[in-house]
Amino acid sequence: MSFVRHITLPKGFVAGATACGIKPSGKKDLAIIAGRAEVSAAVVTTSNQITGAPIQWIRHILPRGCGKVRGMVINAGNSNVCTGKTGLKDTETMAGLTAKILDAEAQEVLVASTGIIGHPLPMAKVKKGIAAAGATLSLRNDGDVAEAILTTDLRAKSAFVQTRIASREVRLGGIVKGSGMIAPSMATMIAVITTDAKIAPTVLRKALRQAVAGTFNAITVDSDQSTSDVVAVLASGLAGNKTIQPGTAAYRKFAAALAEVCGELARSVVADGEGATRLVEVIVRGARTDAEAEVAAKSVANSPLVKTAVHGADPNWGRIAMALGKSAAKVVAEKLTIRIGGQPPSRRQNAEDEFVKVFARGMGCKFSAKKASSLMAGDTVKIDCNLGLGQGKFTALTCDLSREYIAINADYTT
Amino acid sequence: MSFVRHITLPKGFVAGATACGIKPSGKKDLAIIAGRAEVSAAVVTTSNQITGAPIQWIRHILPRGCGKVRGMVINAGNSNVCTGKTGLKDTETMAGLTAKILDAEAQEVLVASTGIIGHPLPMAKVKKGIAAAGATLSLRNDGDVAEAILTTDLRAKSAFVQTRIASREVRLGGIVKGSGMIAPSMATMIAVITTDAKIAPTVLRKALRQAVAGTFNAITVDSDQSTSDVVAVLASGLAGNKTIQPGTAAYRKFAAALAEVCGELARSVVADGEGATRLVEVIVRGARTDAEAEVAAKSVANSPLVKTAVHGADPNWGRIAMALGKSAAKVVAEKLTIRIGGQPPSRRQNAEDEFVKVFARGMGCKFSAKKASSLMAGDTVKIDCNLGLGQGKFTALTCDLSREYIAINADYTT
Repeated sequence: MSFVRHITLPKGFVAGATACGIKPSGKKDLAIIAGRAEVSAAVVTTSNQITGAPIQWIRHILPRGCGKVRGMVINAGNSNVCTGKTGLKDTETMAGLTAKILDAEAQEVLVASTGIIGHPLPMAKVKKGIAAAGATLSLRNDGDVAEAILTTDLRAKSAFVQTRIASREVRLGGIVKGSGMIAPSMATMIAVITTDAKIAPTVLRKALRQAVAGTFNAITVDSDQSTSDVVAVLASGLAGNKTIQPGTAAYRKFAAALAEVCGELARSVVADGEGATRLVEVIVRGARTDAEAEVAAKSVANSPLVKTAVHGADPNWGRIAMALGKSAAKVVAEKLTIRIGGQPPSRRQNAEDEFVKVFARGMGCKFSAKKASSLMAGDTVKIDCNLGLGQGKFTALTCDLSREYIAINADYTT
Repeated sequence: MSFVRHITLPKGFVAGATACGIKPSGKKDLAIIAGRAEVSAAVVTTSNQITGAPIQWIRHILPRGCGKVRGMVINAGNSNVCTGKTGLKDTETMAGLTAKILDAEAQEVLVASTGIIGHPLPMAKVKKGIAAAGATLSLRNDGDVAEAILTTDLRAKSAFVQTRIASREVRLGGIVKGSGMIAPSMATMIAVITTDAKIAPTVLRKALRQAVAGTFNAITVDSDQSTSDVVAVLASGLAGNKTIQPGTAAYRKFAAALAEVCGELARSVVADGEGATRLVEVIVRGARTDAEAEVAAKSVANSPLVKTAVHGADPNWGRIAMALGKSAAKVVAEKLTIRIGGQPPSRRQNAEDEFVKVFARGMGCKFSAKKASSLMAGDTVKIDCNLGLGQGKFTALTCDLSREYIAINADYTT
């Protein structure tokens, strides 16, 4: 496979990966991403109360979610979750062995782990894997890394954005794995973004938290939430820009670029969702507050009845109204307008979306079911809900729910 | 089909049903349940903010959820939801025509409607149906009524309980339809319970609310919530008991019998859930409070990953731990114990359940996956979670998630 390059395009990063035998398939399963020197790091981790050992490690070395690190080691195929003291020790060992290769301290290495949970890592394989991956660290192996972090994902997923900040070229590259929002047995979402921007860890964290809110925190495949989700951004500072300060034009430009990378990665996670055949954008406008818009949008995006209707290209507005109405957000049927949008299959790429109004003033509208269904038959379906109560807005991203989702998840461990 | 009798077994009730052509299949679709005279009534209706016209009618005639009524008319095949002023007028017409048959006022007739939403009722058919159903009112047609209220349900569902209150025999009979918790396009859960107990409307409502909390409010098929859910109980007072007063032994006995009927109906709704192949009881104990136990149990019961694992008879405790951990209830991995229970297929009926401990002290236990899987292969699977933090407990009921659910819901309107 050949990939467009991504996480080693920002200056100051190398990456390498190997197949050390954790995945029974023999595919690549261990990756290292490293700064050539110390880098600024910021992370956002899962809000699940049950957490894997690597999440506990990251919180231990970066208690405020940011700091200076040298790199990150990731294994796939066996997630180090609910493995007790052994799990914590194994995580520290992974950090320590990677640190040795990078001539650093264990406390300077982030760790992530994804795959089936509850089984201790096969540490003999992992140790060999770290040595082997370390030996491949270079500018050219970022494609291998994007592959090595996958579990049930069908595709490697990456993004790249270039921007100018105060006349300096700044690059951001990212990779992600996810499949299910949490894929089978906590398969976990892991995203790593590298950048050569010069920015302090605390400012980087602020930008990351903002970026995550409208991107990774706006997507859902199955409403389940992993014990190991982590989004990490590493900044080498080699772009030559003046250090980015909060509240400046430079910060806004960097934050926008980071949000763009996160948005692209988040979209690709949903598009590659387990059994997904189409992407669904649930746009809620006119809510009393942004928070209520988010609650309402996620209620629609998580509704199995809405997701199966989208799978069947069925403009069933009743299910959308139901999902809005059951949410904690204020909804008044008489003020609600629902439109269904997308691109008819005959249209050329990048054509403007068309919309059909299906619900207004407390009732279904007269509309062509054939037209609405054709708009729902494309790769991306938009569900636009105007609550008519205020200025709050939020867009949630999800995918349809197919028989394939059941097939993937009914017998994952066996 | 022949049914065990139920809602006309309590003294003072008659019932009748007909096929008036609302269901394209030609099956029965209109039913009337009536007291021979005025009866005490109590209702619990959906908490969805979008409600059907019949729900608005019920709230109009019983603003405090209880009062005196003469009967109830129910149609299936077309739910009168999001149909504007026409829908409200049609509901009032249904109540009025039924009232005429019963020699009563429209305000004394409850109305319910289930099926596809957003289409005005075919009132010509409905009017003929009310006349025809009214002509069949008798003690013998309760089976027809149980059939007439169904939509995607596979089976008619009923329950009957007999108890002695102060040496008088008191009977309670019930019917329910549900299929999906809300089945396709708000197909709605409708439950009607009749009893000959003598009890005031306000006391009946108190008993109903208590009964619903642990039964109808503890079940979930797909986490979606109908715009038309209604549970109604009608009490004729002909059992000859002294009027049941709150806080007495008689009240406790009646409340227990009502909870038993509700429990049996609720279980049958889940067992007949869309695509369901097995029942899942999620028992959460040791929570800090009952409310937290409920939140945790429902998080597990609504998790698509848990439900697909049960479908595959896969003892995947990681998904259970994840679903507990993502809930708003306090969960500490080190204090949590998870056991999976059921009956091995070889055992005779009504044998004691066997349990396998799969998770304790923050880690998976050593257990026989074959044994655990065999316990999950029966009709009922128990997931027993002890949070180890307090005395709070709650049991949620759900079903597994199968390919069939997708098939039923991906193309319901088309």
